[in-house]
This record gives sequence, structure tokens and C-alpha cells, in this order.
Amino acid sequence: MLQSQLFSKTSRAVSADEVSLNARLLTQAGFVDKQMAGVYSYLPLGYLVFKKIEQIIREEMNKIAGQEMVMTAMQPKELWEQTDRWQTPEAIMYKMAEPKGEPNVGLAWTHEEAITSIAQRFIASYRDLPKMVYQFQTKFRNEPRAKRGLIRLREFVMKDLYSFHASEADLDVYYERVKQAYLAVFTRCGLKALVVEASGGAFSKQYSHEFQVLTAAGEDYTVYCPGCNFAQNRDVAKGKVGQKCPACRQEKLKEGKSVEVGNIFKLGTKFSQALGLMYADAKGHEQPVVMASYGIGPGRVMATIVEVHHDDAGMCWPESVAPYRIHLVRLGHDAAAVSWADQVYQKLMAAGAEVLYDDRADSAGVKLKDADLIGLPWRLIVSEKSKNQVELKARDSSQAELLELDKVLNKFSVR
Amino acid sequence: MLQSQLFSKTSRAVSADEVSLNARLLTQAGFVDKQMAGVYSYLPLGYLVFKKIEQIIREEMNKIAGQEMVMTAMQPKELWEQTDRWQTPEAIMYKMAEPKGEPNVGLAWTHEEAITSIAQRFIASYRDLPKMVYQFQTKFRNEPRAKRGLIRLREFVMKDLYSFHASEADLDVYYERVKQAYLAVFTRCGLKALVVEASGGAFSKQYSHEFQVLTAAGEDYTVYCPGCNFAQNRDVAKGKVGQKCPACRQEKLKEGKSVEVGNIFKLGTKFSQALGLMYADAKGHEQPVVMASYGIGPGRVMATIVEVHHDDAGMCWPESVAPYRIHLVRLGHDAAAVSWADQVYQKLMAAGAEVLYDDRADSAGVKLKDADLIGLPWRLIVSEKSKNQVELKARDSSQAELLELDKVLNKFSVR
Repeated sequence: MLQSQLFSKTSRAVSADEVSLNARLLTQAGFVDKQMAGVYSYLPLGYLVFKKIEQIIREEMNKIAGQEMVMTAMQPKELWEQTDRWQTPEAIMYKMAEPKGEPNVGLAWTHEEAITSIAQRFIASYRDLPKMVYQFQTKFRNEPRAKRGLIRLREFVMKDLYSFHASEADLDVYYERVKQAYLAVFTRCGLKALVVEASGGAFSKQYSHEFQVLTAAGEDYTVYCPGCNFAQNRDVAKGKVGQKCPACRQEKLKEGKSVEVGNIFKLGTKFSQALGLMYADAKGHEQPVVMASYGIGPGRVMATIVEVHHDDAGMCWPESVAPYRIHLVRLGHDAAAVSWADQVYQKLMAAGAEVLYDDRADSAGVKLKDADLIGLPWRLIVSEKSKNQVELKARDSSQAELLELDKVLNKFSVR
Repeated sequence: MLQSQLFSKTSRAVSADEVSLNARLLTQAGFVDKQMAGVYSYLPLGYLVFKKIEQIIREEMNKIAGQEMVMTAMQPKELWEQTDRWQTPEAIMYKMAEPKGEPNVGLAWTHEEAITSIAQRFIASYRDLPKMVYQFQTKFRNEPRAKRGLIRLREFVMKDLYSFHASEADLDVYYERVKQAYLAVFTRCGLKALVVEASGGAFSKQYSHEFQVLTAAGEDYTVYCPGCNFAQNRDVAKGKVGQKCPACRQEKLKEGKSVEVGNIFKLGTKFSQALGLMYADAKGHEQPVVMASYGIGPGRVMATIVEVHHDDAGMCWPESVAPYRIHLVRLGHDAAAVSWADQVYQKLMAAGAEVLYDDRADSAGVKLKDADLIGLPWRLIVSEKSKNQVELKARDSSQAELLELDKVLNKFSVR
């Protein structure tokens, strides 16, 4: 991609009400645009990141037999009244204004009602179970706390997976598979997520599980053991900071602010009973289907990556989710430098590499600052001085090396 | 994919109010589920088709230098008041109910306002032009005519491309490139679309262009020449049925019902002037940016394909957009048939072929009827009789041939 043709430009100016680091950097670098509080557009650079995160999640959901589908934002009042969620919790649901009378159509902030009613068409017998479906779909939430940039939004895409089982035992087995799939997602995205026990809420006496990434940008508090996997949300934590870990009994517990990048939740039979999703067991007896739901917000994952991977000069994208792997930066505008840089770009493109080529007429200072801000993992500098070589530097390193083009092509070729 | 594990099942029952052919077949075959009038979920089979259509459109938009992004559904009142589209046309915009007072947030039914305001961040000089961006994004329209199945919806994804130019001459050149890209999209999707002249509306004295597919399911009327490319929407048509074509002067004009699968539209400076999107020309003079917008609804394309490609037994998907290329149908349940069919499935999967494998315990009659309804382009039948061979038949042919497995693998391998 030629940077001179990119739709967005970098800009240091950000509106004063944008207090979160992730939104400031993403806005300055031209990855997102704020439409209003808690509502952001993804510009081309940001959407490339979003799609890479989405594809990582999709691959991991497909590995655990998830089938992709997509449900609707618009939802009828009658459906949500059956589960007593039309008015509560706390009017989180946006509703369409009616010229006269009360609203009867709302926008889904979650899809348990919708998927349960759809599943009734297809689940009738134990032979039809288990079933697992997921979607990437836009949720709308009337969110009073829409700050923290892209971490808490009023409009955002969620990946939500729903599973349907004949028994709690069958659910328990699948639930563990999802837990592992979630950890694989976050690892692939460059995040270290803790599996945190949290309240099961009204649905279950068991814990639900949150996936929390430690960062000062978080709004949750996680109590965790630095020596083992023990971690609990502060709201339900049995141990306090400084006490001995109740699991390994070796280390003392710590506490940190954290962002919830995913959660998995046993719903039990709450929705199947409310909406009548029953199946006939092997003896022909009617039983309510046992359900669970599992969520990840790809946009929140993106924002959390920025919070974790940045320095004073800008963002530092992990290779797996960077909009492009390589930032080819041409310094100098004489014919030799231009011709050599153009050649390098053509050869990298022919090798199938993902390259953003800064072919702009700007000064070296502007270009290098922009490259730091945008934060692609590898920088290739071509200048008058390079003389048929290129200078390679990782974004998170100060060490550069001068290399023959062939070596660089070898490193980045995907053909 | 094992059909026994597919989330959806076929069902002949469809609600009586579902009058359109596309919605009836897509519902019966388990491709979609109706949430309410004009609002449909895509089930896994339907979503596979949707994603293939989306990818075809994406590839063609990328070829004409479109950059993918995604804007928001939620829109502030203040923005739309600047173009006088908050209240009109005809309250097509859904608005969020407010506990007290008038709504001040609506849901986008189009994105000229949003993209124009975003472009102000990045377009300041003639050097920044032209720019082309597109998105696949969910539109909401308070649509009184929500019938015709998935052809006219209240919630649907649209691919909308917006282009920004320094002059009408530059726009004219790009507009022709988009026209050709659109024709490529429809051809690849198995549709023959006419380029139809239609009113330019309030924005332009020139024609806009609709892409119309002739089918009785349409709600538009297209006057066209069977001998040349001449075609006009009946609302603006200069010629009438039976008159000599004004373009080629050879054939007599015909008229047919048609579905508008896309449209392209010169906006001129209407939005750039209303919202202040100006650029400095080479002499430093401020000029309004010249704009155009270009839309395709992938779901409407899918519904139109069904209207055009079906027979009495069900749908007949073109290979380019079929959820799977091959329907492997096992007839008979003895150990030899099961083992041979499983082997065929494994070998096809290893060859990278897209296969739906009907491994269900149902009768031959049920399975063959379901295969006709679902309509995958190629059917492979394996039964006790096949004896290390497979029977291959195209969905739209009655001719079957018995082949060695190697020949079949050769035909469908993508490795």
C-alpha cells in the first residue's frame, strides 16, 4: 500500500475529551475515528487490525466445532418479555422511538433470546445435541460509562458463541475446550490473559470465567497469584493482597487493574426453560436444553493490545495483528533513492509481503515519527546512503542492520 | 461438514405470511431464519453464501483501489440536520427512544453524512485526491414495504463505496471503472445485470445507473433492448415497449420486472458543500470536493440468485457462491456403504474440496429431496451399489455418471 494514497493521515491533534491512551494513539495514527461518545469508525488501517483479530478468533472457534452464522440487531419486544429482559437490566437496551405509543422493537445487546428461539427450529431430540454456533455481530448498549476509548463502547462487534447440551456433564467438557480456545486466541493476539473466576450471577452457583489482561487501563480488579494460575475477580475473591495463595500455598497474592477481554458463562436452563427449548432424551422424556454463552470483543482486544504494546513514540503491533508487517520508509527524494525504494517495494510485493510504503514527499523526521506512531513490527529504511542495501529495524528495538535485499526478501517472503 | 452436525435442518413448513419464493426456499433449506418482518438471521449455510458474495465484491472493490473501512450505525442528530436528512425522506431513519424529550441519536440508513465528515480530517488539498473507501456495514431502514423476502429488508448489510474527486472529469473516469467492477461482481455471482439509466434525483441532471436483474420477483420495471445494451428504468424511459430502440435502431424495446442489485450515483458537491468538505486547488483556491456513492446489498444479491437459479425441487447455486461445492450423499446404511462413503469424504477433504456430507440415518428419498432443496452444484452419490465408484451429477442436470474416485478427486482438488 502506498502511504501517499492511504485514506487516513496521522495527526497529533486529538480532542481534549479523549482521555484514554488507546483512543488517543489509534486516533492520532489514523486507525479509528470517533463518531460520538462510545461510537467509533474503523479507518482502513484499524480495520486491517480488526479483521486479523477476527480471523484469529474465527479459526479458534472453528477448531472447537463452532458454526458461524449471524443474527439480527433488531429484536421484537415479545421475545424479550418472555425472559423479563425488555425493561431490565438498567435499560441497557436501545429501543426504537415510535411516533405514538411505547417502543416494541429494540436493539440486541446480547443474543441469548434470539439464538434460543432459533434453536427451537432445529433441536428436538438428544440426537440433535450438542450444537455450537457463533457470530461476529454488532451489539448496541446504552452504556453510561462510555469512556476508556475502545474498551467500553455503545456500539461494538462481539464474537458470541452459544452452545447447547443434553447435560451439564457434556457442557462441562465443552466449556473447558472453549477456555483453552480463548487462551489460544489471546496468546495469538500477543496478550497474556489470566483465567479469572467470577460470579456465576443469577444463572449458576458455579463461577463464570473472565479472561483478564493486567493493565492500568482496566476497570476491573483481579486478585492473582504470581506463582500459579490462581486468579479471581476482586468482587468474589476469597483471598486478599499479601495473603498466601489458597491454591499453590507458595506465593503471596497480588492485585492489579485489568481489562476483561473475554468471558465464558454457564447459563444452565434459564433461557431454555423461559423460551421452551426442550429435547426428548433417550427414554422419550422432555428435558430443558443446557446452555452456555461465550464472548470476546475484537475491538476491545485491539484497544487492549494498544494499552499493553506501546511506548512514548507510539504503538508496537504484534506481528499477528499488525495492519502490515513491514513499513518501508524512503528517506530522500533524489532519483536514485526513489528508484531503489520503488524496486524494493515491487520485489516485496512480488514476494507476497505485507508492506506499507511511505512514498510521501515529507521530511525524514516526519516519516520516522509517523512510522513510530503507526507501529508496524518491521521497518525498512531506504535512502541515498543505502546503496542497494536496506536498513532493517524492529519497532521495539533500537538495533538496525544493513542488509542485502535478497536477505530481506528471504525473511519476509510468504510465497 | 457432516450434515448430521449442521446447526440447521431442512423443513418444508414455512409461515403462511412468507410469500416470496427466495425467503421460502432459503427458510426451508435452513439458510435463513426470520426474526420479524424484513429482519432475517443468516444460519450457517446461508452465511457461507453471504461471505462468498461479500468476498467477490471485496476483491472487485480492491481492484479499483477501494480501501475497506467500517463506519457506525449510531449517528448524531446534529450531523444529519446539516444536510436536512434528520426528518426526511419519509422518516426512513430509525431513532432511539429517549426517556424524555426528542430522539437525538438515529441509525444510519446510508453513510454520506458520516463519510463526508470523516473525510474532512484527511482531505485538504488537491494532492489528497482522489480517495476511495468502502465498507460492508449494517443499514437500518424503517421500510413500510418489507416483503419480497430478502430483497427488501429493514436491517441489512450494504457494501457502500464513496469516492472523492477534485473534478467532475476525474469522477467521470472513476465512475466508469466502478460500472465495470459492478458488472464483474454480478457476472461472478451468476447474475446477468443490465446497466439501467435512472433519475439522478436532486443531485444531478445526469442519469444515475441501476444494475437490474430481470425476474418476476422484481419491484422495478426496466425498459430494455434485446439487441444492444440500452436499458432505462420505466420511470425515466424515453422509449416504450414495442417502439424501436433509440440506441441501436434495430430491435424493438421490451419491458420486464427486475430487481435492483446495485446502483451508482454521482452526488456532485451536495454533501461536501453542506458539510464543508473543501480542498485547495493547485492555485490555492478553495473548492468543494466532488463525490459519488455506489451500493450493493450482498443479501439482496443472494435472494436474487435464488429467484433466478431454482427449479421446482429447490435452489441451484452457481459454483462461485454455493455454501459447499459438493453434496456427498450416502445412500444405504450397511457397513460397506458407510465405510466407503467415509473414505470418499476423507479423501475429498484432504484434497481441499468443499463438501457437505450427508451422513444422516435418513431414507434415500429424504436425502435426495434435501439435496435438491439445498441445491449444491455437484452431487456425489455413494451407495451399496457404487462398489468403489461414485456417481456424479450436476444439480441442474439429470445426467449422472459413475466414476472412479481418482477422477472425482482430480476434478475437485484445489491443492
